[in-house]
Amino acid sequence: MATDELSSTFAALADPTRRAILKRLSAGEATVTELAAPFDMSLPAVSKHLKVLERAGLITRGREAQWRPCRLDARPLKNAAEWIAGYQPFWEGSFDRLDDHLRQMRKGERDA
Amino acid sequence: MATDELSSTFAALADPTRRAILKRLSAGEATVTELAAPFDMSLPAVSKHLKVLERAGLITRGREAQWRPCRLDARPLKNAAEWIAGYQPFWEGSFDRLDDHLRQMRKGERDA
Repeated sequence: MATDELSSTFAALADPTRRAILKRLSAGEATVTELAAPFDMSLPAVSKHLKVLERAGLITRGREAQWRPCRLDARPLKNAAEWIAGYQPFWEGSFDRLDDHLRQMRKGERDA
Repeated sequence: MATDELSSTFAALADPTRRAILKRLSAGEATVTELAAPFDMSLPAVSKHLKVLERAGLITRGREAQWRPCRLDARPLKNAAEWIAGYQPFWEGSFDRLDDHLRQMRKGERDA
């Protein structure tokens, strides 16, 4: 399966609970118990999500055996943002219009 | 499993072959055969990737039964870019420094 960094990042983001955990951690570090509270999820279920986030490098865990607070590490998101930004001209529609224009030109040539 | 739009988008991007297909389509529409060529993959394997991309709304397929050319639709990437952009202050480190600063302050208070 996909194991490159960008794939790990996007896979980690492909879940609403994991995105909500990152949002919570953007307000400051939190323990697993604190993270589990708003989700009505079991601790093992939350821990599973945290492992995915940790493997993707999006969170780090503290050393304290008892608490192991989680902390956001947003750095992998930079590459993801840069990859997506390459497509901005397309969602802004300028390339769509260019494509339509070329299509019309070709059609015109064929019909001529 | 996760079926919200943002999750579908990120899941579709979490594979290097699917990202390569999107890159190829950013140069213009292509048939499945044309898309399969550089990947040394079977047509069914490529078709599976195309289905994921199509369900995520990242590509559209032409109507012509024989060819069904694929075309990039980058619009879902806009939401993904906006979601990620919310974390830019964190990967740029300004929040890290703020966090470290607050940590030092608290430590100072405790030690005082």
